[in-house]
Amino acid sequence: MTSPEAREETVLEAVRQRREQVNDAIPEELPIREPERLYEASRYLLDAGGKRLRPSVLLTTAEALADVEPLSTEYRSFPTLDEATQPRSDDDASAKRRAPETIDVMDAAVSVEVIQSFTLIHDDIMDDDDLRRGVPAVHKEYDLETAILAGDTLYSKAFEIMLETGADPDRMVDALDVLATTCTKICEGQALDVTFEEDDNVTPEAYLEMVEQKTAVLYAASACLPAILMGADDETVDALYGYGLDIGRAFQIQDDVLDLTVPSAKLGKQRGSDLVENKQTLITVHAREQGVDIEGLVDTTDVDAVTEAEIDDAVSELEAAGSISYANERARSLVDQGKDRLEVLPDNEARRLLCELADYLIERGY
Amino acid sequence: MTSPEAREETVLEAVRQRREQVNDAIPEELPIREPERLYEASRYLLDAGGKRLRPSVLLTTAEALADVEPLSTEYRSFPTLDEATQPRSDDDASAKRRAPETIDVMDAAVSVEVIQSFTLIHDDIMDDDDLRRGVPAVHKEYDLETAILAGDTLYSKAFEIMLETGADPDRMVDALDVLATTCTKICEGQALDVTFEEDDNVTPEAYLEMVEQKTAVLYAASACLPAILMGADDETVDALYGYGLDIGRAFQIQDDVLDLTVPSAKLGKQRGSDLVENKQTLITVHAREQGVDIEGLVDTTDVDAVTEAEIDDAVSELEAAGSISYANERARSLVDQGKDRLEVLPDNEARRLLCELADYLIERGY
Repeated sequence: MTSPEAREETVLEAVRQRREQVNDAIPEELPIREPERLYEASRYLLDAGGKRLRPSVLLTTAEALADVEPLSTEYRSFPTLDEATQPRSDDDASAKRRAPETIDVMDAAVSVEVIQSFTLIHDDIMDDDDLRRGVPAVHKEYDLETAILAGDTLYSKAFEIMLETGADPDRMVDALDVLATTCTKICEGQALDVTFEEDDNVTPEAYLEMVEQKTAVLYAASACLPAILMGADDETVDALYGYGLDIGRAFQIQDDVLDLTVPSAKLGKQRGSDLVENKQTLITVHAREQGVDIEGLVDTTDVDAVTEAEIDDAVSELEAAGSISYANERARSLVDQGKDRLEVLPDNEARRLLCELADYLIERGY
Repeated sequence: MTSPEAREETVLEAVRQRREQVNDAIPEELPIREPERLYEASRYLLDAGGKRLRPSVLLTTAEALADVEPLSTEYRSFPTLDEATQPRSDDDASAKRRAPETIDVMDAAVSVEVIQSFTLIHDDIMDDDDLRRGVPAVHKEYDLETAILAGDTLYSKAFEIMLETGADPDRMVDALDVLATTCTKICEGQALDVTFEEDDNVTPEAYLEMVEQKTAVLYAASACLPAILMGADDETVDALYGYGLDIGRAFQIQDDVLDLTVPSAKLGKQRGSDLVENKQTLITVHAREQGVDIEGLVDTTDVDAVTEAEIDDAVSELEAAGSISYANERARSLVDQGKDRLEVLPDNEARRLLCELADYLIERGY
């Protein structure tokens, strides 16, 4: 067994190596051009950082599918699965129809990150959040108009960038379909999240379904897009989509747990802010079902006024109700399920990395 | 020569007949589903009306290309151009590769209208406009969060709906590329429009370029999309794109003229509101070049406070500078140029209708 610490180091190093390449690709795909202020605002959050977890999932899945050594192969000219299954022929007609032998999977990775960035910009407006990734939110650094437009620009740019992968048109159409339906689901999930804020009867299953739509579908898209673009069979595409959904939900549950358990200094914001701001999490919907008075856990709704002692008491009550263990167990079981789905992939180093990445998502400390 | 009145009647009747079909198709493509509030907000402006000029251009162009009698052919099962140029063969391999013989051009028409509606929802937020099509703007009827999300939902839905046309994948990829780049240009045009508000040195050419990006590209997409999806050659696609750009710019210029010349009651808003709100138009940028003190034309910036006499004086000054004639002449010349481009189409009734529609755009009274 790999220890969580060793695993964290392996995963973070693997993510870091891919992140550097993604960071180089972003300005290539999204150069600052006229009107400059619009493109600067569009790039602002992308340039402010981010772990690039979703692009890393996408690129590593591509490596597992192609059965190549991690980081051994140029992402911009990445082999499809066609050579192995469809031997080359000199017949002209079939050559004309043959899918391209290499595609640009980095474009797909950037496209997914661009979608993520667009949703963050619009979400920050909707939640009127001031900070993101340690810098002002786009509507604070610029203005509301520019932030709406920057998000809208990234939205169409994500499609434009995906269209540049050079994949076979049949596969490209399927990939764009995944991208479009993913965006629709993210919007639906965000709308559900808003209605949940005023609903005291949300069940854990309803909460997890909202998380699936709001957060997990983009992980699912990240995992299955290389399979679609490279020409994998439907079984593989579906299994990878399921892997992404599973780890995406686990990721969000872990975020909910960390908000309660990690010291404020390390978290970069007030510990327990979800509780203070009455945000639903898997923990609070479970605790409410156990009869805990969630609204009474913390008196204030002002994150600057809450004390550490109040948060400690609230966390103790949630622990006593079994709600934190419940969340940890749900996350663990999702990750295990997700890892099982990867058996559809060849047994290789990249597949092991996708398993480690899944474990990391629920073992990470922040 | 057709009289403007007779033409208006012909065009309005042709648009009305297509509008009814588009209005039937919208709820089919965008049913109200969970989360209901989100989908109701997404449909709100679409259901509030609109002339459906862009879908009408798209559907009529399809008819002209297919060389069929207007309204004679089911839009949902519309012939492509393949049968005529590629005779059917019983050979299996070629049959497999043959493009579909019919496509759903109504999906393409709805997709374009959905994009238009998304941009209106977000534009109204950015301009903080209260009314649209005689009903409250979406962010007023619902709220800011819901309006942003409704626009975002329509955005991805437009791609989903376009993906349902059933066109050959190669053509579908090209059509989605047009859709994505069109959305990007609309965002760029809107951003330019915002910067122009604080720029006193905008030239007529720069203004028209902004209009091209903000408004005309969606007309251009409407005109060229059926050609792409049905398999027309590049020359035809390019000519139709140019026709759309020309009539789209003319349409916006006429809107600018009408704002000054049509009585408030007929206009549905205060005549001269562009002047009062210091919005740049082709007329004001031309007049400024002629030395007119545009900012001094109307004293107030409150549309409720301005008098008809003030507007009359301002219009007289703009007339004296030749700016209204200049705008009329530019619009006329764009329409004539657009009509010339249609010679790439077969000489038929639908093509004549596209010419009449172009004339109507600059002859209409509101």
